Amino acid sequence: MSDLPVLPSFLVADAVRAALKEDLGRAGDITSNATIPMGARATAEIAARKPGVLAGLALAERAFREVDSAVRFTATRADGDALAPGDVVAELEGPARAILAGERVALNFLCHLSGVATATRALVARVAHTRARICDTRKTLPGLRAFEKYAVRCGGGSNHRFGLDDAVLIKDNHIAVAGGVGTAIAAARAFAGHLVKIEVEVDTLDQLREAIACGPDAVLLDNMSPDELREAVGVIGGRAIAEASGNVTLETVAAIAEAGVDMISSGWITHSAPSLDLGLDVTMT
Amino acid sequence: MSDLPVLPSFLVADAVRAALKEDLGRAGDITSNATIPMGARATAEIAARKPGVLAGLALAERAFREVDSAVRFTATRADGDALAPGDVVAELEGPARAILAGERVALNFLCHLSGVATATRALVARVAHTRARICDTRKTLPGLRAFEKYAVRCGGGSNHRFGLDDAVLIKDNHIAVAGGVGTAIAAARAFAGHLVKIEVEVDTLDQLREAIACGPDAVLLDNMSPDELREAVGVIGGRAIAEASGNVTLETVAAIAEAGVDMISSGWITHSAPSLDLGLDVTMT
Amino acid sequence: MSDLPVLPSFLVADAVRAALKEDLGRAGDITSNATIPMGARATAEIAARKPGVLAGLALAERAFREVDSAVRFTATRADGDALAPGDVVAELEGPARAILAGERVALNFLCHLSGVATATRALVARVAHTRARICDTRKTLPGLRAFEKYAVRCGGGSNHRFGLDDAVLIKDNHIAVAGGVGTAIAAARAFAGHLVKIEVEVDTLDQLREAIACGPDAVLLDNMSPDELREAVGVIGGRAIAEASGNVTLETVAAIAEAGVDMISSGWITHSAPSLDLGLDVTMT
Amino acid sequence: MSDLPVLPSFLVADAVRAALKEDLGRAGDITSNATIPMGARATAEIAARKPGVLAGLALAERAFREVDSAVRFTATRADGDALAPGDVVAELEGPARAILAGERVALNFLCHLSGVATATRALVARVAHTRARICDTRKTLPGLRAFEKYAVRCGGGSNHRFGLDDAVLIKDNHIAVAGGVGTAIAAARAFAGHLVKIEVEVDTLDQLREAIACGPDAVLLDNMSPDELREAVGVIGGRAIAEASGNVTLETVAAIAEAGVDMISSGWITHSAPSLDLGLDVTMT
Amino acid sequence: MSDLPVLPSFLVADAVRAALKEDLGRAGDITSNATIPMGARATAEIAARKPGVLAGLALAERAFREVDSAVRFTATRADGDALAPGDVVAELEGPARAILAGERVALNFLCHLSGVATATRALVARVAHTRARICDTRKTLPGLRAFEKYAVRCGGGSNHRFGLDDAVLIKDNHIAVAGGVGTAIAAARAFAGHLVKIEVEVDTLDQLREAIACGPDAVLLDNMSPDELREAVGVIGGRAIAEASGNVTLETVAAIAEAGVDMISSGWITHSAPSLDLGLDVTMT
Amino acid sequence: MSDLPVLPSFLVADAVRAALKEDLGRAGDITSNATIPMGARATAEIAARKPGVLAGLALAERAFREVDSAVRFTATRADGDALAPGDVVAELEGPARAILAGERVALNFLCHLSGVATATRALVARVAHTRARICDTRKTLPGLRAFEKYAVRCGGGSNHRFGLDDAVLIKDNHIAVAGGVGTAIAAARAFAGHLVKIEVEVDTLDQLREAIACGPDAVLLDNMSPDELREAVGVIGGRAIAEASGNVTLETVAAIAEAGVDMISSGWITHSAPSLDLGLDVTMT
Repeated sequence: MSDLPVLPSFLVADAVRAALKEDLGRAGDITSNATIPMGARATAEIAARKPGVLAGLALAERAFREVDSAVRFTATRADGDALAPGDVVAELEGPARAILAGERVALNFLCHLSGVATATRALVARVAHTRARICDTRKTLPGLRAFEKYAVRCGGGSNHRFGLDDAVLIKDNHIAVAGGVGTAIAAARAFAGHLVKIEVEVDTLDQLREAIACGPDAVLLDNMSPDELREAVGVIGGRAIAEASGNVTLETVAAIAEAGVDMISSGWITHSAPSLDLGLDVTMT
Repeated sequence: MSDLPVLPSFLVADAVRAALKEDLGRAGDITSNATIPMGARATAEIAARKPGVLAGLALAERAFREVDSAVRFTATRADGDALAPGDVVAELEGPARAILAGERVALNFLCHLSGVATATRALVARVAHTRARICDTRKTLPGLRAFEKYAVRCGGGSNHRFGLDDAVLIKDNHIAVAGGVGTAIAAARAFAGHLVKIEVEVDTLDQLREAIACGPDAVLLDNMSPDELREAVGVIGGRAIAEASGNVTLETVAAIAEAGVDMISSGWITHSAPSLDLGLDVTMT
Repeated sequence: MSDLPVLPSFLVADAVRAALKEDLGRAGDITSNATIPMGARATAEIAARKPGVLAGLALAERAFREVDSAVRFTATRADGDALAPGDVVAELEGPARAILAGERVALNFLCHLSGVATATRALVARVAHTRARICDTRKTLPGLRAFEKYAVRCGGGSNHRFGLDDAVLIKDNHIAVAGGVGTAIAAARAFAGHLVKIEVEVDTLDQLREAIACGPDAVLLDNMSPDELREAVGVIGGRAIAEASGNVTLETVAAIAEAGVDMISSGWITHSAPSLDLGLDVTMT
Repeated sequence: MSDLPVLPSFLVADAVRAALKEDLGRAGDITSNATIPMGARATAEIAARKPGVLAGLALAERAFREVDSAVRFTATRADGDALAPGDVVAELEGPARAILAGERVALNFLCHLSGVATATRALVARVAHTRARICDTRKTLPGLRAFEKYAVRCGGGSNHRFGLDDAVLIKDNHIAVAGGVGTAIAAARAFAGHLVKIEVEVDTLDQLREAIACGPDAVLLDNMSPDELREAVGVIGGRAIAEASGNVTLETVAAIAEAGVDMISSGWITHSAPSLDLGLDVTMT
Repeated sequence: MSDLPVLPSFLVADAVRAALKEDLGRAGDITSNATIPMGARATAEIAARKPGVLAGLALAERAFREVDSAVRFTATRADGDALAPGDVVAELEGPARAILAGERVALNFLCHLSGVATATRALVARVAHTRARICDTRKTLPGLRAFEKYAVRCGGGSNHRFGLDDAVLIKDNHIAVAGGVGTAIAAARAFAGHLVKIEVEVDTLDQLREAIACGPDAVLLDNMSPDELREAVGVIGGRAIAEASGNVTLETVAAIAEAGVDMISSGWITHSAPSLDLGLDVTMT
Repeated sequence: MSDLPVLPSFLVADAVRAALKEDLGRAGDITSNATIPMGARATAEIAARKPGVLAGLALAERAFREVDSAVRFTATRADGDALAPGDVVAELEGPARAILAGERVALNFLCHLSGVATATRALVARVAHTRARICDTRKTLPGLRAFEKYAVRCGGGSNHRFGLDDAVLIKDNHIAVAGGVGTAIAAARAFAGHLVKIEVEVDTLDQLREAIACGPDAVLLDNMSPDELREAVGVIGGRAIAEASGNVTLETVAAIAEAGVDMISSGWITHSAPSLDLGLDVTMT
């Protein structure tokens, strides 16, 4: 896997520090303080216990370094790599107390983000024979959006908008108040900056025909059957990006993709992706 | 459901504000700004789309109020309530732009935390005929621990320690360095304050016998079969709290509980609980 | 002026609090504390001293309310309004100490943002007979970007991208490394989400021809003369948004606009806009 | 230029991080991520494009280092130096992505602060033949006061108070409520700590005579003509610092200074100083 | 007691919130959550248990209001009031859980700041027959300086500088490096703004004579005996503020004051003032 | 002294940065900026001026390093060491300005925390012949709890709970509302996690008998005489930890300890411990 974006380092630093504060609290790791001598050193490996896709190494590394900059963290795999059980993804060496104190925060990031990447990859694999790309939504876990969207890319997916502010997505309520899809698109075109794209959500082919006539950049075809989607793609005729959403599962995604859409968006890959099991094994030295 | 803890209000406020910043970014909800007049008002309902257990109303309410204090949020159900599809959990009235701008953040909290509560309740239901209680772990999503642990209670579960600092949990590495389980427990007893409990993790009955002789407050029986657990409970003989962990699933949890343990801890209920589907339906007024 | 965006309230709150901390320091307004009795009340008016365009009322109001929520702030004009000297934009009533303590922070925001709006309006007025719109750049004052971009809209301008993350802008260095404008655009298309627009900066008509063949959403025509711009607009032929930049002044902007471009971007309206003189006159009551 | 103060490093760090977050947002520099390989390196120069005075090198350096500590930043000029077009002020070498990602934030600080220094130096030069010193006011851009006051010193100016809390400045409202200038000064003397100076603003010579009799440390002569100022300086007779304010421009400042005042304060040098044009030229290596 | 300064409200809010987070942690007041029903109400009184001087009501009130804005807090005494044992300083009514949850933070502020005020008042009382005023130093507890300096005023004392940045205090090291007291004062005069006072610390009368010739605003007479101080006051002859420091105790302070100095500074009143015992008595209603 | 806990590094960093901002303000150390050349270097020693126990070296070191990472700080003693007047605890070398700028913040932490350790050690010494241990309370100075509790350990004491959330402490109000001590303990047992200890405060032996029958982990014997305490210890009979509180002074503590209690808690060691006098002596080099 290559061509991944770079997570802004201050986002990583802020999130990792907040997580460490959450875990170390006011008194720190009292178990290690009580039982592990100050000077004790350890080596450790982080390894996959289940198959999946790796994501989040930068956050894991940062967790240990924030506890103690003396911990050496050597990644042996890269974000986006497919993992088999037993695959070692990173080796650590340093003060034993710091490795133990940073372990849970590092793994909590790594297991969740790898879970997101793994779920994404599973959908991506089902549509590899089509032109469709899998993308995420704004249905992310609060505080973790930038990292989850990064993990989606690690899984081979693409990103939908990052927030309410970087693209227009017109839904039924907006259309109702604006007085029609044409009026809504025109209002958005007038309001938004020239580098902002405009997408319109439609539920029916009639809505789609009305929308497409107004020149949106993309249309969101919500909860349509594969047959409806196929017809919708024909209606669109390449004049806008065709995005399908709703009822996207491992079972349904191939048929959706085969309908000819450009993008398939899934909330499941971020809000419900099961954690990927990775563990840390320590050797005291 | 009653007797839930109160989430400290500043934790709620901080988390909600961070999530809103993440979603509204630098330019806010540009779609609504473009298409919804400033003065437009709306009513809305938040309703369950799937069966489950409710958790997180305070965060959802706060999300709308932080966007605009003029939004009225009336909860019609309480955290911990069992929900059937279609059950309305809250009614809203206020500025249309604010309701639309707060929607996703409110739902992201509510769906995730209700998902945690629902997963917990599922395990709890399987062990209702036993003395065992279901509890969480430190395998939580970074930044969301206090809320997830609250959701576990909404689901009828109990809380394990909140961090590395509020209880001692001695694992194999600590024992190895300390030079034996007895030495480790003695060191912890000498180090920790008198209101800190000490738990020891054991993998075998031999380890358990050695540990129990040293008077820990609790023992964590990791990855034991129901038969081993039953024997372990006998060895403990009520001298310590017996907690089982490892391989806890909907299928296995009843057998684990029937072995007579006091607590069963599950990381799955926090790190992998699927989101509960709740939605917001708006009526422009 | 209507149809302005809504500044996210937490951005306003954070910026105002930071500014108040900067001004009130550790000991507060020691002059008023020494000379104005605790219970003294005052009324005040904020009025323009020079002609211009108003922007930033929400920040001014917030400044007084953060000092003391008992201050009543009544806007008598709206953001985007043209002001003549003497025009009153807001009336205040409340504790005298609070009005005096909040005055400078409120005015610092109001005068700067109204200055940005005024500068923008001046450019906008010069191109009113054309199809060109005036927009801003990322050349903003650190920490004030969201507010300055809002002020640009108050002045009748439009917004360019808000940061490095919400649109692609390919410049010469990117092209050089990527190995050509076509490769760069293709790489961006593959990398960026489907709701992200792609703009390419070109300095010559040859570059423009090469770029336009690759289908960018917009082209930035940098430092071209009106004649070159006119020719460039012909080359583009409506296939991309045409944005002109470089050497944009009150004197040059009409000729640039008359060349037929869609957008004219100016850093001057944010980084060098002179403050608009507004003052606060207090009457002790 | 020498003898400049040292900007507290945490003020620099906080401001730079906030500016980077503002610019890099949630997704970082997507253009460079798409087109510049991870390992690509570059050199760059920051150079003046217009004549002026340099200020803000520490902020520019910090911007690059916060993005990636591997960027080497070598200042070739010092804050306070006079610059001619083409003068290189710093050379950079490091990861290409980091140099491009930090460029705008670094320049936004550098161009604004150099603009402040340049405006200050222009006034300073006009009064070099007198005893008067140019100083700033509290009319600064929100969040940037400490840096702008530093830039004023780079331009050869001096600093007025930093906030409402570090010196007393009694104005007409304070006098009216206190019941006279004498009462106001006495109240301030009694209230303020012994290391706090007291200045009184006066508009007329009568007010001045009354004020000076009460022993203030300084008097602010507001909006007086050069002739009035000259007379005022005579009335003061060295018993207080004489500060002139109001209508201070490049055209008027010499006459004001020649009236014999000690200080001339200008809001223009901070709130309306045009940005100094500096640019960054990159060479990919 | 009257004429106290107003603590900036955001300083109060920030400090109280940080203290509440420190006390309520991740899980809140688990004892009250377990034993006090959600709807239970209570009244309470805060009363002095020992004689002293009150300081910090605003922080105490804020503590309860931050926990739950439904708590009514009615101050029955004012900051600066002398208290006898049993004196009630505030009455509360509201949700029982909130009163219990806020109690310790409110009292921790109130007891410490009242302790500072009480210690100050004790010194002030010993010098009431002289012209000397008692003031504080920068020897304050980290994070509490603004509040402690406020409490010093509640006790009848005055404030020395608030930080390194709001007044110049030249000590022996500065003089040594600068090359003499005259050079140091001249350098400070040239460097500091015109509203910054300059104080010089001297240990001997010879140093004093040298210093006073250079026109400092104040001199700090460190560790001199009453006789030396008397002679020093004569040397100064009203040309500078005379401040005594070092070995200031309840036993020595009168003699120091009688030597004729203007100010006597004490670190003890902030860094070592014993807590004043105030308690909260709750009645469940 | 050994076996001290490790203060979480981000708690140290946050507290030190806040204290530096408090002291350096907006303009930094203007005295040193004016009189000490940028390049000047110095050495310094921190030494005790009074006998006591050392605590807080990590905070002192951090203070200098945050000002300038070029300062070398070499501890020559360790936290928990007993100090005689003149004992050097740390040696510094580095930029003179940085050493002077960091001095006061470093000493404010060191003197206060060493004061806490010294007060603790004094109590500890009086009970060395008994089984009793000295512990702290929640009566700490706002914002400094984690550091003060660390200092208590440096003095040989032990820690009570860190906040309202990590242990249950049932007092009279809780019992009154719950309807009896048994109900309250049962409610707490049902509510609290299995790793949370439960303590009950009692004032009389009757209350104690009732409480002890309900199986609390600890009992707080408040304000009992040594004779009552002795009888209470007999009643408890080893079934719970016996903690004494109230009227604990250097004079009374031995008698309290001799009554046979396990723990003696003192608020005085944190809220009223006099500062330990340590000073910094600089040599310019």
